[in-house]
Amino acid sequence: LLLCWAGGCAGIPDPRLRDLLIQQEASRQTGGAVLLTDTEQRLSAQLHELKLQEIARPEFPPAMHFFKARALIQRSPIFSLLQKMPKGAALHVHSSSMVGVDWLVKNVTYRPHCYICFTAARSVRFLFSAQQPRTQPHCSPWLLLETLRSKMNTTDLDNSLIQNLTLFTGDPETAYPSQDSVWSKFEETFNVASGLVSHAPVFKDYFYQGLQQFYTDNVMYLELRAALSQTYELDGSTHDRAWSLKAYQDVARKFVTEQPDFLGARIIFSVHRGLNSSEVRVAVEEAMRLQKEFPEVMAGFDLVGREDSGRPLWYFREALSLPSERGVTLPYFFHAGETDWEDTDVNENLLDALLFNTTRIGHGFALARHPLAKDLSRKRGVAVEVCPISNQVLKLVSDLRNHPAAVLMSEGHPLVVSSDDPATFGATGLSHDFYEAFVGIGGMNAHLGTLKELAINSIRYSSLSPQLKDKALTLWQRKWDKFISENSQ
Amino acid sequence: LLLCWAGGCAGIPDPRLRDLLIQQEASRQTGGAVLLTDTEQRLSAQLHELKLQEIARPEFPPAMHFFKARALIQRSPIFSLLQKMPKGAALHVHSSSMVGVDWLVKNVTYRPHCYICFTAARSVRFLFSAQQPRTQPHCSPWLLLETLRSKMNTTDLDNSLIQNLTLFTGDPETAYPSQDSVWSKFEETFNVASGLVSHAPVFKDYFYQGLQQFYTDNVMYLELRAALSQTYELDGSTHDRAWSLKAYQDVARKFVTEQPDFLGARIIFSVHRGLNSSEVRVAVEEAMRLQKEFPEVMAGFDLVGREDSGRPLWYFREALSLPSERGVTLPYFFHAGETDWEDTDVNENLLDALLFNTTRIGHGFALARHPLAKDLSRKRGVAVEVCPISNQVLKLVSDLRNHPAAVLMSEGHPLVVSSDDPATFGATGLSHDFYEAFVGIGGMNAHLGTLKELAINSIRYSSLSPQLKDKALTLWQRKWDKFISENSQ
Ligand SMILES: [Zn+2]
Ligand SMILES: [Zn+2]
Repeated sequence: LLLCWAGGCAGIPDPRLRDLLIQQEASRQTGGAVLLTDTEQRLSAQLHELKLQEIARPEFPPAMHFFKARALIQRSPIFSLLQKMPKGAALHVHSSSMVGVDWLVKNVTYRPHCYICFTAARSVRFLFSAQQPRTQPHCSPWLLLETLRSKMNTTDLDNSLIQNLTLFTGDPETAYPSQDSVWSKFEETFNVASGLVSHAPVFKDYFYQGLQQFYTDNVMYLELRAALSQTYELDGSTHDRAWSLKAYQDVARKFVTEQPDFLGARIIFSVHRGLNSSEVRVAVEEAMRLQKEFPEVMAGFDLVGREDSGRPLWYFREALSLPSERGVTLPYFFHAGETDWEDTDVNENLLDALLFNTTRIGHGFALARHPLAKDLSRKRGVAVEVCPISNQVLKLVSDLRNHPAAVLMSEGHPLVVSSDDPATFGATGLSHDFYEAFVGIGGMNAHLGTLKELAINSIRYSSLSPQLKDKALTLWQRKWDKFISENSQ
Repeated sequence: LLLCWAGGCAGIPDPRLRDLLIQQEASRQTGGAVLLTDTEQRLSAQLHELKLQEIARPEFPPAMHFFKARALIQRSPIFSLLQKMPKGAALHVHSSSMVGVDWLVKNVTYRPHCYICFTAARSVRFLFSAQQPRTQPHCSPWLLLETLRSKMNTTDLDNSLIQNLTLFTGDPETAYPSQDSVWSKFEETFNVASGLVSHAPVFKDYFYQGLQQFYTDNVMYLELRAALSQTYELDGSTHDRAWSLKAYQDVARKFVTEQPDFLGARIIFSVHRGLNSSEVRVAVEEAMRLQKEFPEVMAGFDLVGREDSGRPLWYFREALSLPSERGVTLPYFFHAGETDWEDTDVNENLLDALLFNTTRIGHGFALARHPLAKDLSRKRGVAVEVCPISNQVLKLVSDLRNHPAAVLMSEGHPLVVSSDDPATFGATGLSHDFYEAFVGIGGMNAHLGTLKELAINSIRYSSLSPQLKDKALTLWQRKWDKFISENSQ
């Protein structure tokens, strides 16, 4: 650049130079170098107009808490377009929060042999059992839901069960004044759901229903974080992790047979970062065995749970280096930097995830503040899984225009958008999170090229084999072209 | 770097390599390369301990609205240290908000000949006049404050006057639900103050008092944005801009004579970005004349007011290129990127400020999302004036840990910390903003070296001549050494 304006020349800065600089900056952002066809450009212009209308309204959804914004978002024509848009893959979703909680209550809890008990903390537990189960500590005696429903207003009961399974509420600021309170309720929702979803027949149905919901939302492939916890039968007998993994594989295959334009799902076996090092060692060893036994469905390993109160990756370094010591490949997909604290031990999780050759980074909320880790992540093509609604609901950021992924997006950092725990947050599939990423994080800079790159990224940075990526991209492109021709005016 | 960990080697990543990477990243941040003496290192360790205590408390001030956090901050031992710390210069302060509003009410409005009128919008106007002044449109007839005070509870009256002069309130979320509402009240506070501070004798006293308050807060030099509006005498006669500039110069010289360890103040003549291009042209021409006539006190030119609703810099391009066309030096100090909207016209303000050779960038809130402008700003040593409390109160960000300056700080971007409109926000000098920058934006990463670099930056990036910078640095170093020896344990 010959910087005439660096002090040497008089007068108005050259408008052509100015335009060039503006273009150069725009070309750096996610989707900034994507070439759009004429039809795509028309749709992009429509989206731009729609965004201007969105901004002109008194309430701007990405600046509001998602629980208050959801109804507005669902009336937005941008959201309707994003629902129809083929979004590629959902790469950061937890297996127990795939399916809207309505389905759990309205379908699963109405099945025979479903028992409920009530905890002192006004929560509940569920259990399927052929006989009256033994009372659990800290819970009331088990009641058959069928009996309970015959005695009371089922609408009230069902609504209260729904409340126990989700964070969604009309007044989130009062309900969750702090990160501690929202995390505590967040983890409780999974305890509530576990008695339902770990019942073996429900486990399969739930997963099938989850695939269906994502498929309906125009998502074509999933990578699920799953604990692979024990599942159980009506007689109390249990199945191990291999059973769960096999069940995922069978159900995914069945779904793909029925919907050949869907590519299935792979599982990232995930254990809680509250475990100690020997427990994680056992888990890593099991992960290696599962990886060998189920290469089709098993994608790799992760540690989950709140980073700020869990153990840092470095604490688990011996367990995490077992695979490379044994010459075994176990891809990692670490949650890291899901925090707004700087430079606690936990904040080295970003660097450590990279040192342990993570395939992607879950959240990476703190990455923009870690320039060295950020450079490494970019150079090594380690994509960040951005989950806007999750970060807002779990109180890392309130106005999503301030989400640090705005920095990453402006630099064209490898990114994918995902929904983390959509059911718990009251979202569906990926569309709500795409809305927040496109309208809030991306702001007026984000255009159709951004969406296109985000969708392609979700395939490019998936754990699929090169052959399957090609197949996925071809399939996605066909859907995309159809979407463009049907929606561009 | 020989990247053993890039996949080639087995086992735990080399802990020495890991430490090296952590150190490399830490050295990039603001203050990361500052060498600390043993005594400084001890104080830095004390600060680290104090921060850990601050974090362990149930309420973390930088995550709260400043109006709710202020009492907590003022009880913090970190704040006490920051008050005592020689902070260098305050480079982004508006002249009408230098002095705590208590002084305006308790001192200025008690002076003789002070009239008040009441607007329909429950606000007030003030005027000093020898005779009963003519009633203004949209205001009640003028009442002599002395008469009014004799008839009512003066405590209530004074408290209500204070409320009219500041945004500070116990319940900011309810009082200011939107950016529009907070900006509207913000601009109104300046309308209220103007009748007081533009009375010629008050004008000088106000400035003297302002220097005193910053001096007491251990600030040694100021650069003030000032509109240089007409001042008036009791008989209604008025003075022009040159009079105001001369008054600033005289008062600053007087103050420096009394306090030889203070270095005075310089003025950045600032007009409102709501003006049209020919009005700004007139202002730029006057700025050039003033610059020539008062080189000691006149620092340069700026455009102020809310960017989102004002005109972009590019709109004023002809006026702004007058100086370079005429071969005249008129340094610019543009407010730019004080917005959370991306890529509206206004967002090119950052680039345009750089194209017009701005000396510093006011706020630059959006800079982290503009990688090209950010690179230019860094390469050309154009410092960003970060005003944390202002950005929070004016609703750009709620949790200051998410302030985008955290990104800039992690990269060692040229930065200074300032307080914008301390009186309006209920802050004093620079200490409250330093607290937010050090504890909130800097987080656990920021240490004594960060504070040292921020203080030195405020001199390095000031508009002082090289000779005066040397003098200022020598003086500052003496104060700093004293501060360290008195406070390190
Ligand atoms: Zn997650
Ligand atoms: Zn300002």
